Amino acid sequence: MKRYQRYAEEIARLIQTQALRPGDRLPSVRQASTSRNISPSTVFEAYYLLEARGLIHTRPRSGYYVSAQAATVPEIPPASRPNKRSSTVAISDLVFEVLGSVKDRDVVPLGSAFPSAKLFPLQKLARHLAHGMRGLDPWRIVEDLPPGNGRLRRQIGLRYALDGLSIDTDEIVVTSGALEALNLCLAAITRPGDVVVVESPTFYAALQALERLDLKAAEVATHGRDGIDLNALAATLERHEVKACWLMPNFQNPLGSLMPEEKKRALVELLARHEVPLIEDDVYAELYFGQHRPPPAKAFDRKGLVMHCSSFSKCLAPGYRVGWTAAGRFAQKVERLKLMTTLSAAIPSQQALSEYLDQGGYDRHLRKLRQTLATQQEKTLRGVVKHFPKGTRVTRPAGGYFLWVELPRGIDALKLQRLSLSHQISLAPGHLFSVDRRFAHFVRINYGHPDDTRFEAALQTVGRLAATLG
Amino acid sequence: MKRYQRYAEEIARLIQTQALRPGDRLPSVRQASTSRNISPSTVFEAYYLLEARGLIHTRPRSGYYVSAQAATVPEIPPASRPNKRSSTVAISDLVFEVLGSVKDRDVVPLGSAFPSAKLFPLQKLARHLAHGMRGLDPWRIVEDLPPGNGRLRRQIGLRYALDGLSIDTDEIVVTSGALEALNLCLAAITRPGDVVVVESPTFYAALQALERLDLKAAEVATHGRDGIDLNALAATLERHEVKACWLMPNFQNPLGSLMPEEKKRALVELLARHEVPLIEDDVYAELYFGQHRPPPAKAFDRKGLVMHCSSFSKCLAPGYRVGWTAAGRFAQKVERLKLMTTLSAAIPSQQALSEYLDQGGYDRHLRKLRQTLATQQEKTLRGVVKHFPKGTRVTRPAGGYFLWVELPRGIDALKLQRLSLSHQISLAPGHLFSVDRRFAHFVRINYGHPDDTRFEAALQTVGRLAATLG
Repeated sequence: MKRYQRYAEEIARLIQTQALRPGDRLPSVRQASTSRNISPSTVFEAYYLLEARGLIHTRPRSGYYVSAQAATVPEIPPASRPNKRSSTVAISDLVFEVLGSVKDRDVVPLGSAFPSAKLFPLQKLARHLAHGMRGLDPWRIVEDLPPGNGRLRRQIGLRYALDGLSIDTDEIVVTSGALEALNLCLAAITRPGDVVVVESPTFYAALQALERLDLKAAEVATHGRDGIDLNALAATLERHEVKACWLMPNFQNPLGSLMPEEKKRALVELLARHEVPLIEDDVYAELYFGQHRPPPAKAFDRKGLVMHCSSFSKCLAPGYRVGWTAAGRFAQKVERLKLMTTLSAAIPSQQALSEYLDQGGYDRHLRKLRQTLATQQEKTLRGVVKHFPKGTRVTRPAGGYFLWVELPRGIDALKLQRLSLSHQISLAPGHLFSVDRRFAHFVRINYGHPDDTRFEAALQTVGRLAATLG
Repeated sequence: MKRYQRYAEEIARLIQTQALRPGDRLPSVRQASTSRNISPSTVFEAYYLLEARGLIHTRPRSGYYVSAQAATVPEIPPASRPNKRSSTVAISDLVFEVLGSVKDRDVVPLGSAFPSAKLFPLQKLARHLAHGMRGLDPWRIVEDLPPGNGRLRRQIGLRYALDGLSIDTDEIVVTSGALEALNLCLAAITRPGDVVVVESPTFYAALQALERLDLKAAEVATHGRDGIDLNALAATLERHEVKACWLMPNFQNPLGSLMPEEKKRALVELLARHEVPLIEDDVYAELYFGQHRPPPAKAFDRKGLVMHCSSFSKCLAPGYRVGWTAAGRFAQKVERLKLMTTLSAAIPSQQALSEYLDQGGYDRHLRKLRQTLATQQEKTLRGVVKHFPKGTRVTRPAGGYFLWVELPRGIDALKLQRLSLSHQISLAPGHLFSVDRRFAHFVRINYGHPDDTRFEAALQTVGRLAATLG
């Protein structure tokens, strides 16, 4: 990210967190240049960018001001208050029913779990794929069996190192995407009937994994800004014999919440005292809008209890099905489960990613992707404010591509989903994100399709339909 | 396969089944040419081929005779006699311990489960991969989610049709290799504690799947020539509440046995009467040495109870991780399990195989592969006869790349495996192929590495080591 972009980001955050409010005057170009020790042209470029995004405007001969529309972003929904009992899970049928439209090109994918594949360097990856497979040593097909391609695992280890984490390559197991990593980790440490902590709301794939393995869910209150409530988690750990936690400290799905570093440290320490393993779903971490990649909870793990799971599917290579886990003390168990169930991640995919990571300009791609998503989030927030019924609350994630929207009570999200689908728009209703369907007036909105020209109109339609249900 | 090859195959089978015995005179070239209505040069070419394989020899001015060495092939081991009770499974640790050497290039892979990757058109596949991914419509990443790439599924359906099977494309689900297909099928129809029928001996991956899902194994007597004993199976179905059968009617691993068509039909009818689903592992069917691909049991299924599982890993594209199941009435359940656990088979792999199947010369490749493996089997049988202790019995499969070798009683296969490994040769000891380690004096030998120059010497070494243990 260039200096002017960094500076623009900083101001955008101040506006989003309402440290700068509508009508507030920004520092003059000269003031900013002096105080920040950057050139006037850098400040100008940053202000132009913010203006283009609709966050600030100029008043002739007066300066730059925060725009009114920038701050009409509504409240964030309050922390959830899930049921204190643990319960069996039966969500899969509803998930498949509701999300069945995902392949239909005519449907605007507000309900999709995937960002637009057009955001990724598919052609460049194809070239690395071709290069990597040309002249492949046939023996590699056996050598790249789990734990996986050695060069790729070292590259993953190197990226941890760049983020300040020291991860032993030996604990990294390459998987067929993060979803497999998460499922194998869960299978490695649980038996049917065990209790597993999840966030409330939580990603429906976690609930589906619990349902499949006949596990019980203990849902814990989670806030849209800073994640799981540690007091509530501590109480849950006292109340239940918890065998695992499955959490997303970075850009939680669907909330987009981000746990502050100190809170992550406290989380890991709390779980360590109870000897409870943490399955950390960290697939969105590269999609941060701030200055640095937020560290995973794994960064604070001293006992090998954190099983960090991620992939390239959301940030580089959708469809290649390459993910991994750094599974701490459970690495060998996970590796063996992988060998027993799907044998190996696809060799061509492993090969392509390894080639790309060596030479492909990953960080340049990521900077652009983050910028695109951050801009799109702002547009989407403005669209929600403009088109959705009064009283709507919405999260303002610092990364990822989901908004979690709380509609006025009484608007049934399943009804809204069905109505929207009849207008060729998909939605992910809140019902999918808990065991007891308590988020019945929430929807998750995917803004990861900036190339979709129907997006703005679709938001408007959903808003209008929601109003008719109110 | 060319006409002379077909004719040579026919005679080779007669020798293997001992319809032609050592010293028997073959029809003269003129006789054969007249009686078969083929040209004399075709007969000559066939005889040259058989001579090159060491099966026949000429006597000057007299004709062609079956060689002595062709018939010193020893007896086939008798049918197994497994325990009648069902039992829990604990085999995985031993499997991983014993097969840990698979990645070591210095070890001759007699114990490997994989054929040599050099037998496959990896460069040609790489070209189709590059072509298939260049200019890929990004939307395809979503469209190729389970049940999988539409074109590839139609191509799989077409190959069924060419073999005379009418399979609805709708029941085909693309998976990450056959191993995933088998595991998903098993998970789709069982609950922990259920009883599942397997062959005795059976592929250890089936036992590992049962162990992982906490299922009980009921092992049924199986013969090295024609597969599972249907009377024994019927008795097992009466004795236990069986929830599934996991069988390999074609070229069973490790036996290499091939169920005759009528026996397959009877199997499917027997299971249908009990409403027991059959998970059919058919990964070796393309590696037949006879005239035609043997049909799967699925061909006789009228109730949608047979879940046919196969892949391209053993016959075309190892490491690409593309398999499938035609899962009958359970197809949707399997598709959903796939979505929940690993999401999708890798898009580049699906794309490459679809391109290759359209234009790559698959059948030409398969003909060559079969010929190579058939020739290598003969060499290996001769090597076993020559080098292994007297009293050794061995299967003579009509396809695949495994021999199941019964050593004289008292020779412990685990000891032999460890001793062989100290000589840089891997072996798969019989212990791995049953729940109660009853095949303690058996080994499975992989002859799918014809390019390995160390193969003959390794056989000799193992034979010598076996003799020291007798």
